[in-house]
Amino acid sequence: MITRMSSLFLRTLREDPADAEVPSHRLLVRAGYVRRVAPGGYSWLPLGLRVLRRIETVVREEMDAIGGQEIQFPALLPREPYEVTGRWTEYGDALFRLKDRKGADYLLGPTHEELFALTVKGEYSSYKDYPVILYQVQTKYRDEARPRAGILRGREFVMKDSYSFDLDDAGLQRSYALHRDAYINIFDRLGLEYVVVAATSGAMGGSASEEFLAVAETGEDTYVRSTESGYAANVEAVVTPAPPARSLEGLPEAQVHHTPNTPTIAGLVDYLNTKTELGRTFTAADTLKNVMVKTRQPGEKDWHIVGIGVPGDREVDQKRLEAALAPADVALLEEADFAANPFLVKGYIGPKALRDNGIRYLVDPRVVTGTAWVTGADKADHHVVDLVAGRDFQPDGTVEAAEVREGDASPDGKGTLVAARGIEIGHIFQLGRKYADAFALDALGADSKPIRITMGSYGVGVSRLVAVIAEQHHDDLGLVWPRAVSPFDVHVVIAGKDETVAAGAEKLAADLDAAGIEVLLDDRKSTPGVKFADAELIGVPTILVVGRGLAKGVVEIKDRTSGDREEVAVDEVVARLAKLVHG
Amino acid sequence: MITRMSSLFLRTLREDPADAEVPSHRLLVRAGYVRRVAPGGYSWLPLGLRVLRRIETVVREEMDAIGGQEIQFPALLPREPYEVTGRWTEYGDALFRLKDRKGADYLLGPTHEELFALTVKGEYSSYKDYPVILYQVQTKYRDEARPRAGILRGREFVMKDSYSFDLDDAGLQRSYALHRDAYINIFDRLGLEYVVVAATSGAMGGSASEEFLAVAETGEDTYVRSTESGYAANVEAVVTPAPPARSLEGLPEAQVHHTPNTPTIAGLVDYLNTKTELGRTFTAADTLKNVMVKTRQPGEKDWHIVGIGVPGDREVDQKRLEAALAPADVALLEEADFAANPFLVKGYIGPKALRDNGIRYLVDPRVVTGTAWVTGADKADHHVVDLVAGRDFQPDGTVEAAEVREGDASPDGKGTLVAARGIEIGHIFQLGRKYADAFALDALGADSKPIRITMGSYGVGVSRLVAVIAEQHHDDLGLVWPRAVSPFDVHVVIAGKDETVAAGAEKLAADLDAAGIEVLLDDRKSTPGVKFADAELIGVPTILVVGRGLAKGVVEIKDRTSGDREEVAVDEVVARLAKLVHG
Repeated sequence: MITRMSSLFLRTLREDPADAEVPSHRLLVRAGYVRRVAPGGYSWLPLGLRVLRRIETVVREEMDAIGGQEIQFPALLPREPYEVTGRWTEYGDALFRLKDRKGADYLLGPTHEELFALTVKGEYSSYKDYPVILYQVQTKYRDEARPRAGILRGREFVMKDSYSFDLDDAGLQRSYALHRDAYINIFDRLGLEYVVVAATSGAMGGSASEEFLAVAETGEDTYVRSTESGYAANVEAVVTPAPPARSLEGLPEAQVHHTPNTPTIAGLVDYLNTKTELGRTFTAADTLKNVMVKTRQPGEKDWHIVGIGVPGDREVDQKRLEAALAPADVALLEEADFAANPFLVKGYIGPKALRDNGIRYLVDPRVVTGTAWVTGADKADHHVVDLVAGRDFQPDGTVEAAEVREGDASPDGKGTLVAARGIEIGHIFQLGRKYADAFALDALGADSKPIRITMGSYGVGVSRLVAVIAEQHHDDLGLVWPRAVSPFDVHVVIAGKDETVAAGAEKLAADLDAAGIEVLLDDRKSTPGVKFADAELIGVPTILVVGRGLAKGVVEIKDRTSGDREEVAVDEVVARLAKLVHG
Repeated sequence: MITRMSSLFLRTLREDPADAEVPSHRLLVRAGYVRRVAPGGYSWLPLGLRVLRRIETVVREEMDAIGGQEIQFPALLPREPYEVTGRWTEYGDALFRLKDRKGADYLLGPTHEELFALTVKGEYSSYKDYPVILYQVQTKYRDEARPRAGILRGREFVMKDSYSFDLDDAGLQRSYALHRDAYINIFDRLGLEYVVVAATSGAMGGSASEEFLAVAETGEDTYVRSTESGYAANVEAVVTPAPPARSLEGLPEAQVHHTPNTPTIAGLVDYLNTKTELGRTFTAADTLKNVMVKTRQPGEKDWHIVGIGVPGDREVDQKRLEAALAPADVALLEEADFAANPFLVKGYIGPKALRDNGIRYLVDPRVVTGTAWVTGADKADHHVVDLVAGRDFQPDGTVEAAEVREGDASPDGKGTLVAARGIEIGHIFQLGRKYADAFALDALGADSKPIRITMGSYGVGVSRLVAVIAEQHHDDLGLVWPRAVSPFDVHVVIAGKDETVAAGAEKLAADLDAAGIEVLLDDRKSTPGVKFADAELIGVPTILVVGRGLAKGVVEIKDRTSGDREEVAVDEVVARLAKLVHG
């Protein structure tokens, strides 16, 4: 069926939307693909829905190809299964919760591990039933604190979520590998530039986990990669290489020094370097900065203070810290907390006061036994020099909280790290047995003994991909869709008011349609200038201009990506475009 | 792609689910199409999802054929637009309401008139833009008081809802007629037996309205049709033909009679017929029964008592009464209400006490001026005879509350009514300007004056249709899908353990698949008996049995509907089935 611009529910906009922060948002709104309905809530207009459907089709094809079976769950879910796994609480404010008319608790599903585990438990019982991969393409809900960038981070969005169920770890690794390959196929087919990075598993539980990040300057996620190896990781997942422990023997004694007016690291280092009697030069990396935070476990009411010790040349990275302490909430100490705990001397906090007052103390992995530090002496205007880890203080553990910097050694020992930004488009997890344990999901083995099932969980942000592809495929004039997801195959522009031009264009559009090519026909009474501008904005990869040349038997094919134009004989154009579109 | 029973996520059940009230629910669960997740919440397993998708495709094709354009809105919607139209309140308990993390009010969309009106207002401005028909196929939410019958009445369900926008009434009637025709095409293609009945518009507002009801004994909706004309109506929509008013002249005076122990109509009539001095025989139809209810308008706190007067030979039909008084809530009076209003003498209530105490009094349309009634005298054990409407009492209006009975005269004056039961599968409304008025949806006319747009609203219960089709297409052995919606085209059963039989079946399945036929292949190690029973239960219309006959070059085609079996030569079977499936 030919779609006609004269009746298409589409009005392109001259102005950028006021709230648009990123190119995809700006262009998808201007070109009439989506409209904002509420914070983080968008409607799909005809063009947008077509792109979304084409992406869904690619995702389904690749999931089916690895043996995935599509099913579909409600989005409105009862509280009970999420209570069993603790996620009713752990999800915190990000979960939309509601009550029905009888007062029963419900939630809008952010992800469906619980329901899939329960469903497999309901249907399957024997080891012969496994493995199985189930998936759905479904509307999901998350009450994001800061919905932004149009459909890039909405509160209602379409995800493909799949779940694998295996009898053993080797099976889980196979299912994981199948998904990894399927995701590579999906994102390759969608024309995306992306990286696969090691990831933390957040609130999901589980062990091995990788994220697929689309490379984008506007991305919310920072990742790092090695200059010399294939290593890449989400910043939250970077594991700091710890140096070997050193011998304590022969290390100088710790000494408390009067260091007036040195609550900052810079001031402290400057002051120390004026004290020639110390016999050496200090840098910020020689100091140990103790940042005080408080944490609260899910479902708990009380906060607990924790000290975070990091080398003074690095800031604490809030996202890394939160990932390291998840699922606990993390907050900085407030004035009231300091007031209530006078042993915390701001600017001069050291390990001793923490230990003496029962405060948990976690340090950067670089703080190994035998390393000596300048740190607070728990007394205003005083620091201690040569405080040695493992001798003068004993941390309660390590924490990945310090910022990761370009130039840091790559955790795999090869090269150094460089940073880039990306947008999460896929995520694969080896969940393991967390959910199977929660619901006693077992298969009866060949020996009649129960086998606890192990699960994987895998997600693709389907609606987000519309924006991500737009983010990577646009220019100053508008969108430039890859052929695989373009709302139409060919955009036919009638350039001229001549009746014979219109009739010729209509005939060509009909011939293209008959050849299985999806045609958008600009049959409006607008000027060619308006039509060309809209065609560039809408971004169909091939534009067919039917104009005055028709009298000489030629039309023009314009490639939206390169801008190249070519005159083609009218009687050859359908075959040419069919080849272009169908390959 | 061939789907194999050996790996299909499907376990058929021998037992009916305990909560199954109707055949479709029983069979869809037993055959593994759906599973219950919560009250009124079901998951779609692979077979069910396939049927749902095929129905969606039929609906989309017919909507596209009338020029409908598909878009999609969020299900999670802000309160404000629904506040503007009053539906935030009017929907009552049926609306799922929730708050986001900032405390803002949201709802889960039960239907989207507000959003569509606002969107058209946002995009369109000129009379040249109209008319337009927009639709979506989307998940909807209603907090049903009594979710029942599996997916027949769920709380989360898929609907196709469309909306037409026209410049004038004639345009609305055209859009309405287009939808009516599209719905007829849809339901015909789906193999449904259905009727189109006049309907009330419920909480939607608007005027002309028809419902499409699938004929089903298990249906929740009762409708009536004329024995002699095409008239059919939802019981709620039946308009009682009112007799002409009569002259008051010469009518006997009203007289109060002592009628001891006659609180019921039957007792009253019996007693009156013992009083020979009254000179005539009474029937229940001569009495006027006054039923007391209370109503509460949406958003109001207080209930108001209303008297409903109906001929004593008819009960008050609660659903008709509720439809007549919508959007108000309606409840029967409780003991406490009678106690608080001692002028209401139970069993002897008459129009006088209502009038004297300011109670609104609505009567059946048969109670026209000049009709004489036996009714309560507002005093225990007393009734009044020959109380004449328009002389002795003045009702505040009429109400369609009395039950409709088989044998009643058809409202169109032709024949009498007979009753049947059905399930609502589609609904078409001429909404008019209610929503356009609420949002000032105007088009600028050719004369530069604004034209208020008029809307239509049209719904098809897409997920419900899976159950409705099952309700009409099953037998004692299981489901019997119409070809248009069957999850597969052909169910190939390998009947025999012989390797050559399996190999032959595999080859046939591959050939069928290559011919564009969707194949379900039962390659399990089960007995033929188990496989045949599952094939009957699952209900694919054509079953191809590959068994011992293969050695002689024949296989068996079984028609699921008729049960007919036919031996066919192996080398002819693909062509035969292709013809059957693709026509």
